[in-house]
Amino acid sequence: MESTIIQNLSSVREKNPLVHNITNYVVMNNTANALLAIGASPLMAHAHSEVEDIVKIVSALVINIGTLDEYWVDSMLLAANQAVKSNKPWVLDPVGAGASPYRNATLKKLLDLKPYVIRGNASEIMALANISLQSKGVDSTHESAEAVQAAIGLSLNTGGIVCISGATDYIIKGNNIITLNNGSPLMAKVTGMGCTATAIIGAFVAVAETVFDGVVSAMAIMGIAGEMAAEKATGPGTFQVAFYDALYQIDAEEISSKLNLQ
Amino acid sequence: MESTIIQNLSSVREKNPLVHNITNYVVMNNTANALLAIGASPLMAHAHSEVEDIVKIVSALVINIGTLDEYWVDSMLLAANQAVKSNKPWVLDPVGAGASPYRNATLKKLLDLKPYVIRGNASEIMALANISLQSKGVDSTHESAEAVQAAIGLSLNTGGIVCISGATDYIIKGNNIITLNNGSPLMAKVTGMGCTATAIIGAFVAVAETVFDGVVSAMAIMGIAGEMAAEKATGPGTFQVAFYDALYQIDAEEISSKLNLQ
Amino acid sequence: MESTIIQNLSSVREKNPLVHNITNYVVMNNTANALLAIGASPLMAHAHSEVEDIVKIVSALVINIGTLDEYWVDSMLLAANQAVKSNKPWVLDPVGAGASPYRNATLKKLLDLKPYVIRGNASEIMALANISLQSKGVDSTHESAEAVQAAIGLSLNTGGIVCISGATDYIIKGNNIITLNNGSPLMAKVTGMGCTATAIIGAFVAVAETVFDGVVSAMAIMGIAGEMAAEKATGPGTFQVAFYDALYQIDAEEISSKLNLQ
Repeated sequence: MESTIIQNLSSVREKNPLVHNITNYVVMNNTANALLAIGASPLMAHAHSEVEDIVKIVSALVINIGTLDEYWVDSMLLAANQAVKSNKPWVLDPVGAGASPYRNATLKKLLDLKPYVIRGNASEIMALANISLQSKGVDSTHESAEAVQAAIGLSLNTGGIVCISGATDYIIKGNNIITLNNGSPLMAKVTGMGCTATAIIGAFVAVAETVFDGVVSAMAIMGIAGEMAAEKATGPGTFQVAFYDALYQIDAEEISSKLNLQ
Repeated sequence: MESTIIQNLSSVREKNPLVHNITNYVVMNNTANALLAIGASPLMAHAHSEVEDIVKIVSALVINIGTLDEYWVDSMLLAANQAVKSNKPWVLDPVGAGASPYRNATLKKLLDLKPYVIRGNASEIMALANISLQSKGVDSTHESAEAVQAAIGLSLNTGGIVCISGATDYIIKGNNIITLNNGSPLMAKVTGMGCTATAIIGAFVAVAETVFDGVVSAMAIMGIAGEMAAEKATGPGTFQVAFYDALYQIDAEEISSKLNLQ
Repeated sequence: MESTIIQNLSSVREKNPLVHNITNYVVMNNTANALLAIGASPLMAHAHSEVEDIVKIVSALVINIGTLDEYWVDSMLLAANQAVKSNKPWVLDPVGAGASPYRNATLKKLLDLKPYVIRGNASEIMALANISLQSKGVDSTHESAEAVQAAIGLSLNTGGIVCISGATDYIIKGNNIITLNNGSPLMAKVTGMGCTATAIIGAFVAVAETVFDGVVSAMAIMGIAGEMAAEKATGPGTFQVAFYDALYQIDAEEISSKLNLQ
């Protein structure tokens, strides 16, 4: 897998895939900067009058429901439907799944469109899998064998990849599981690192041979860049700044020396 | 008061209060990062379809009218009404009060719901108190005895705390006034430091024994973290980064050595 | 021109012009911070209920269509119309021109209101000039004699200034062309540097004797601050932070030693 990750990183930097993000207000800037730093091209657009046209010209679509409302949910559904029609990979970030009936109803509609990839924290993935769990906001990180079971069920149900991110990341396709142990505790102290991971997944699935390889590569890059950044950081402010530098600087040598994957 | 501030900081870090922010597009990212850095959990949600459900699961609500529009004003009113019903503390940031009749009309509706805390700069507080004053945009810092008088009137009228922030901060409950002289001039050169203060107030009133103590604690933490950041900064860019680090690092020792409160 | 640039910088810092931005979600925070760092006062407002009132109290208006939708397009048209009525300079950033029919139709309406200044990358300017060109997203930098010809046509047509930004910047008023060769390749690795340039143009045209001088001054400041930041940066994260510091620190000496203008 190590050489695949290194090759996918090169592909992102050579092909500069255009990644369409319909994401939340909190992290739009982070997401765009992370995509630029890794070598992809970010594009944000949500108007009903153009969202389908935009999906037609991009390489991948990322939908993140963080600050959803009625207008934006329609944008998400228009875009995801167009992605399905155009056979373009699309990725779902179910921010705050379980926090309100409206979020759950919206996620049900999006799940029906069978996202190629879902990435969330343990409680979001469990909520998605209809296991009764009251989500504590949007940054809980309740990880467990239970969440992995939920993710397997969800993957079998959608036919796509499910990624649980946390101190340990799980990338799951049916009964196949890869676990990653890269990253830094400071990542939980900066807003939108999960959302950033989802966007980076968009860039990698746009160029990888398989969606599974794309997700593993993206999550490995995130975790290793997080470790590189933590070496320079004295807190969450300096960490975020160093993280963009790390995405820009990460290379085969860093990947080989730090990758912690089973 | 010093030991109360230190204890409230510990409480925020232990209890990780979930703070619901209905705030402006410019500062959402800042606000979320500041809340994470100090140890609270940020949540942003504004959809009419869920905003009341969200208020029910959080510990405090922060409403900031910076980039208001008709949809968002309805979100704010739904949320504030629910906060009142649920006896949850809610905090108002009247960004740009006085800049347009629409802002003033919106603020009148919000004031009727008796915010537990109002934080603004001197010109915003004066506009709120119906003292005729044409606000020059959103970052004016016209401080004066006049503003303090306006704040006293506003506090007596709403029954809540009024905080005027600036080079000197005034925290006012009726005729009780505490003044704080912490902070750095660089804070005025980074967007949204006032909005960040309001969000941090949300975190502290969620855990403090009294709302007044919570506001004083939050403003002291802001000012002292500002001083810590200024020691590391060479301009507003490095200041902002160092400020998040400072919120993460601030401890009893820093508070004791720097607190400047009367 | 060098002394004009230095004088305009002083004017911005003395007069703190209030700049109204109707801009995209991705860059609002960047834009506000850049305006504060250079010495101007940012204001963001888009509600139909107040947008005309706000235009009346500001010194310049900046319209950036990046994350446009139907509501925001109406805000832009209301604001631009009011700017025309009030004889206030307004600046257009045609983000993603050519990417969808909706963007093109919106831009046509805005062009009819004759922006004082248009700033875009080469492909956006060419799309604007109705030269058939399929834009690749929002960060392409296809520069060429063809783009300059397009810009001349556009300038003659609107009567305003057209600025093509890229490795070389062109500031064009009819057949008058100034070229600037300041800047850093890292500027293309941070989101919203173009949008920031447009906002800074807003601040300078608010104080400069002629719109043309204002645009040249703003673009020179951007490029030189970019070079100052690149000296401190190890990647796009540290670059962005150093860029705000540079806007805050830039002075006559830096301008004289670095300005590269023909």
